[in-house]
Amino acid sequence: MMSGRATQKDVARLAGVSQATVSMVLSGGGASIPAETWARITKAAKDLGYVPNRFAQALKTSRSMTIACIVPDITNPFYPSLIRGIQSVADGLSYDVIAVNTDGSPERERHFLDWARQGRVDGVIGVFFTLRAQDFSPLIEAGVPVVRIESSKKHGGEIAVDDIFVDSRAAAYAVTEHLITQGHSRIAMVAGRGGPQTTRIEGYRTALATAGYEDHVVVDGEFSEIGGMRAAETILGGTFGPTAIFAANDLMAIGVMQALRERNIEIPREMAVVGFDDISAARLVTPSLTTVAQFQWQMGERAAQTLMDRLRGEKSGPGTAVEMPFNLIQRGTTKAV
Amino acid sequence: MMSGRATQKDVARLAGVSQATVSMVLSGGGASIPAETWARITKAAKDLGYVPNRFAQALKTSRSMTIACIVPDITNPFYPSLIRGIQSVADGLSYDVIAVNTDGSPERERHFLDWARQGRVDGVIGVFFTLRAQDFSPLIEAGVPVVRIESSKKHGGEIAVDDIFVDSRAAAYAVTEHLITQGHSRIAMVAGRGGPQTTRIEGYRTALATAGYEDHVVVDGEFSEIGGMRAAETILGGTFGPTAIFAANDLMAIGVMQALRERNIEIPREMAVVGFDDISAARLVTPSLTTVAQFQWQMGERAAQTLMDRLRGEKSGPGTAVEMPFNLIQRGTTKAV
Repeated sequence: MMSGRATQKDVARLAGVSQATVSMVLSGGGASIPAETWARITKAAKDLGYVPNRFAQALKTSRSMTIACIVPDITNPFYPSLIRGIQSVADGLSYDVIAVNTDGSPERERHFLDWARQGRVDGVIGVFFTLRAQDFSPLIEAGVPVVRIESSKKHGGEIAVDDIFVDSRAAAYAVTEHLITQGHSRIAMVAGRGGPQTTRIEGYRTALATAGYEDHVVVDGEFSEIGGMRAAETILGGTFGPTAIFAANDLMAIGVMQALRERNIEIPREMAVVGFDDISAARLVTPSLTTVAQFQWQMGERAAQTLMDRLRGEKSGPGTAVEMPFNLIQRGTTKAV
Repeated sequence: MMSGRATQKDVARLAGVSQATVSMVLSGGGASIPAETWARITKAAKDLGYVPNRFAQALKTSRSMTIACIVPDITNPFYPSLIRGIQSVADGLSYDVIAVNTDGSPERERHFLDWARQGRVDGVIGVFFTLRAQDFSPLIEAGVPVVRIESSKKHGGEIAVDDIFVDSRAAAYAVTEHLITQGHSRIAMVAGRGGPQTTRIEGYRTALATAGYEDHVVVDGEFSEIGGMRAAETILGGTFGPTAIFAANDLMAIGVMQALRERNIEIPREMAVVGFDDISAARLVTPSLTTVAQFQWQMGERAAQTLMDRLRGEKSGPGTAVEMPFNLIQRGTTKAV
């Protein structure tokens, strides 16, 4: 039994030939080598369980046949669906998809860009909470294309980064308008930090300002159930006195619902609630959650197709931006007042 | 602006020195090289945005500082929690965690073992639905340690694969006994194929046999909400006539609940339901779902610690098996009959 990975040197020793000869045979060249020697080398490689080192191959071919999906929170069900959508396209083209988790922190987002520059992956699809277009130039100049999933139309300028985006501002505007149409004039919002939060808050504020109503935003550091619960408690303990709460994602909305339940505030009779993302739990809570669907699987597919077009040289030049639709889904947590 | 990744050759050309000199300097050697040349080379490397190719480094050091987490279904919330638990340990030791998705298929499980043998990762933590201990020997012999998350105590024999396991048979026995204690004697089970299904079905059957009751298992190909819904419809359309349905995971249990709701069968009065895994949706459905908690985050941490012990040479020799606890959590979908 071998300890450690068998090398070409080991194969050369077993076959009784030079390492250069082994290298020539195992890389598919060496037509001048006698058939008997060839057979001895391939048998030795097989007996030793020699695997062509992909790192070594990548040095020559610059292809890892792997793409990375960089996400801020793998435990938020939005992202696994996106990853699975990417995989559905990559599979058909013999690319592997690997997923990494940044927690949305600037350090980790930068770290994984450097990591991706080291020849490990051929392309990157990512949701970045803190990086700007110019942060991607070293990666793109190194020949690793990048597709971003964004929450608004960005202008990459000269940098060839492609965007797949949903107009989060318009979606948040639609949510707020929906609540106003139902008779609400005191609408609070809970949000996390960074990422798509800014545009969602903007859409909410614009809709309220258009109607002549006051806004009230509570931001929590965690874009999660716990964060939503804490933010709801802040709102309920304050003086704004809303009749509806709009949460910047479904996990926060579910946290808001838990806080309301603990205080025996009836949903939607005493308080309407709306989320964002349409994760599968949105259908499962009681009452079921009104939310904005974003078709993350399809976004993943579209992002993967765009990346593949770059990788196969079918697309070049400046970055493009493709808008994807959103859909306001009215469920049990909002009803006409 | 460069097209493609800058190479040592590019650096050599810009600095006006040989590639061998560049290689010596950039790999940290070459003490005999004049300081002026050294400075010229490092400046050229910086100007060109040269990044040491991690693949090339890995050839020398055999370290990628990356571990892979191989899971059957990244969209099942059980696995992202497990992955996040692994990351919490790996982060502290400067290892990156990458996640890959197999769909539980034998071809993809084998594919990612080969993939992991190519020097991309230093170690593997995985949930494998179809592979046996001997399938891991080539990887382990190649110096890549493997930790499996298992649903029963396995015997790896001479193969140094480490297991973190929950006794799924005992857990399924406890669930079934819980239902029997509540007065149920007609208990059906829905399950998917492969993975932990077999041991969960065994535990269910043993508990029923001990009580002298008949069993009735419906297997669906998909270990998901859709699969659970379909299996429940088969049971409800058949002649077994259960008063309780035990689903082999929470996603299937939630599918069962949806099928019952569509037929206006009241839970738990007319039909009790139990799941397995305690994903966060289990708390959120109405009524909330009785299930078996498995502490996936902690399992991930424990698996990562075991892998790190192997990687750092603090652990060697035959594979070990560490049992993790389970916890039957009684909620709204089961009540005394």
